[in-house]
This record gives sequence, structure tokens and C-alpha cells, in this order.
Amino acid sequence: MIKKEPGINVGVSNRHVHLSQKDLEALFGVGYQLTELKPLSQPGQFACKETVTIVGPKGAIENVRILGPVRKETQVEISRTDAFKLGINAPVRESGDIEGTPGIVIIGLKGVVVVEKGVIIAKRHIHMHPKDAEHYGVKDKQIVKVLAEKPERRIIFDDVVVRVSDKFALDFHIDTDEANAAMLNNGDLVWIVEF
Amino acid sequence: MIKKEPGINVGVSNRHVHLSQKDLEALFGVGYQLTELKPLSQPGQFACKETVTIVGPKGAIENVRILGPVRKETQVEISRTDAFKLGINAPVRESGDIEGTPGIVIIGLKGVVVVEKGVIIAKRHIHMHPKDAEHYGVKDKQIVKVLAEKPERRIIFDDVVVRVSDKFALDFHIDTDEANAAMLNNGDLVWIVEF
Repeated sequence: MIKKEPGINVGVSNRHVHLSQKDLEALFGVGYQLTELKPLSQPGQFACKETVTIVGPKGAIENVRILGPVRKETQVEISRTDAFKLGINAPVRESGDIEGTPGIVIIGLKGVVVVEKGVIIAKRHIHMHPKDAEHYGVKDKQIVKVLAEKPERRIIFDDVVVRVSDKFALDFHIDTDEANAAMLNNGDLVWIVEF
Repeated sequence: MIKKEPGINVGVSNRHVHLSQKDLEALFGVGYQLTELKPLSQPGQFACKETVTIVGPKGAIENVRILGPVRKETQVEISRTDAFKLGINAPVRESGDIEGTPGIVIIGLKGVVVVEKGVIIAKRHIHMHPKDAEHYGVKDKQIVKVLAEKPERRIIFDDVVVRVSDKFALDFHIDTDEANAAMLNNGDLVWIVEF
């Protein structure tokens, strides 16, 4: 097995919501603007002070963080653990690929929206700049394998999609289930591998 | 990569509690006996009708299933997702290896016990009969790799410990975080692999 150096930082995504401006206003009031709490690893992206409650047929989850800026379409990213709790059969999808995905109820400070689609389990992925892609010898949308080496729970993640853009910083994004299966935390290193 | 046939059934373990007779009586009353709800895949093991609430510094989880029969020592098996919710820094351990592990509060129908140790995240493992071990060419306590091939979340679990006994049936046991990271359900097939 060949480990490609250097290792890549892990970013663990907890459940979160991206909102359209229309849905944001339905949830928080006409003309509402998101309030930045802290920047995320990807340039221009930020966690917001605002949170919502998401509700499915089997349960609700409170204090779900909104990530900004607003997007064209509302998208709710949950773990499969969350999917069971909510009773929503969410598919594994890349961000933005929400056609045919289930809907959900979102509750904000001043309103409720019923979104007809947009609930996904995010497909694990590596964000990278074109310079990183050149270094590792990979291309946008290529599927790679990633090794995590924490004691007792060493794992090789397959089906990791590489996303390349000059707007991206190098980061391996997984959800909380994937992080826990491999005992990974934010900032741990993992490696693209070949065998 | 060599896949060893036949594939092995997946058993997903949700959080559960094994109780000593002493703790069982403290929680449910003097002379109490567990009530079998349904048998488990391993011979002689069963899920009980009785459940408990488990409580840590950060939270509680209700309706945690007791597995029977009673054991020499009480042991609480949780996922890392649960560990974060409870606020208990549980280590990955094999069943029975509980020295130096954190304690927890358990609440039953008629009492409460504060156990001083026994909270673990179960190390993923394959139960097998000596005949299976001979077939796959592996030994008790050997570490193997296991391939799961569900679409979008193909994974290779390393650090899988093989446990061999003539009391065991062939089964790959993982917790809910591991199942969700690989989109696995009870009864799915996985394969021991070498490369």
C-alpha cells in the first residue's frame, strides 16, 4: 500500500443546514441576514449564530447549525444516525445533488418551512486546490481511497470523491458517523492510498 | 485484493448493558431474574424485555436494552456518538476488558447503581467457530481486514479481531457508528480481505 504524503487534515461535519434566502426569510423574518459566528476551513464559508430545529416523521433534532452564505437551494446534511432518529431515508449524495431526495420540516425563530427535497447524507470528499491535485496526481471527481490510522479503529475509506477548485483548501470532509467509526477528530491526518 | 469466500453476516450492535446479578437486583429488586425477549445470533445470548437509563456528566440515554444472561461484571457498550452525548470518554476495548475504563450511572425500575468501571466502545470483531477459523485460515485474536461494499460508502475495516470458540456462530459485529459509516444493515455480507 502506497501512502501519498503529505497527510490531509480531517474536518468532521456535524449535521447542518444551508438555506436559500427565501427559506431564511420564512424562518427568521423578511429581509433577514445571517450572522457569522466563525469562518469554516473552506474560504468564504462560515458557521452562523442562527440554528433551527429539523423535524421528521419519527423525531426532531434541535440546535442544528446554519452554514452560510445563503445558497440557491436549501439543503439539510445529516448523518445516518440522525436519519434513523428523524425517520428520513436520506441517500448518500454529493452536496448540491438533491434531485429526488426526501424533504423535511425546518423550524426557525419566526416561522416554519416544509422543504420538498434536500435532505442528504454527505458523500465523503476531499476538497483540494488545483496545485494539490497536481501534487497527488488526481483529478476533479476522481474516487480515491483514504487511510485513517487511529489505534484500534484503523480504516480505509473508499468512495472518497475528490473535488478540485481554486476556491478550495485541502481538507478531508466526513460526517460524525464516519469520524466515530475511525476515532477521528478535527485536525487529525489521513492519507490518500493506492494498492 | 483477495476476498475470502463465503461472505460473513453483519450484526449491528446498538448500545446495550450486561449486568452482574448484584447490579440487576439493585436495579430491579432482590432475587430479580431477566426476562428473555428474543435470542441473539450467538448461542445462549438473548435480548431482555428490561431496559435501563444510562447517565453521564453531559446527558442521559433512555431505553437501553439489557442483554442476558447475567455476567460476572457489569459492562456498558456504547457508540462514540453516545459517548459524546453522555460526556464519557469511553475507550475502544474488547468485551470483558474493562480495567481502567470509565464508570456510569445506571437507573432501573427500582433502583440506581453507580458503576465504577465498565463503559466501553466495543472493538469490532468476528465471532467464529473453530471450523470457520480453519476455513478462513485465521486464529483466535488475529487481526484481519474486512471489506464492506455498499454503494457510495465502500469501506475496509482494519483492526477487526477474530474470536474463535466452539460456542460461537459466524458473525461480524460492529456498532451503529461503524454500520452507518459503511451503510450496513443486519444481515448484509462482508468479506475478510488480504492485500
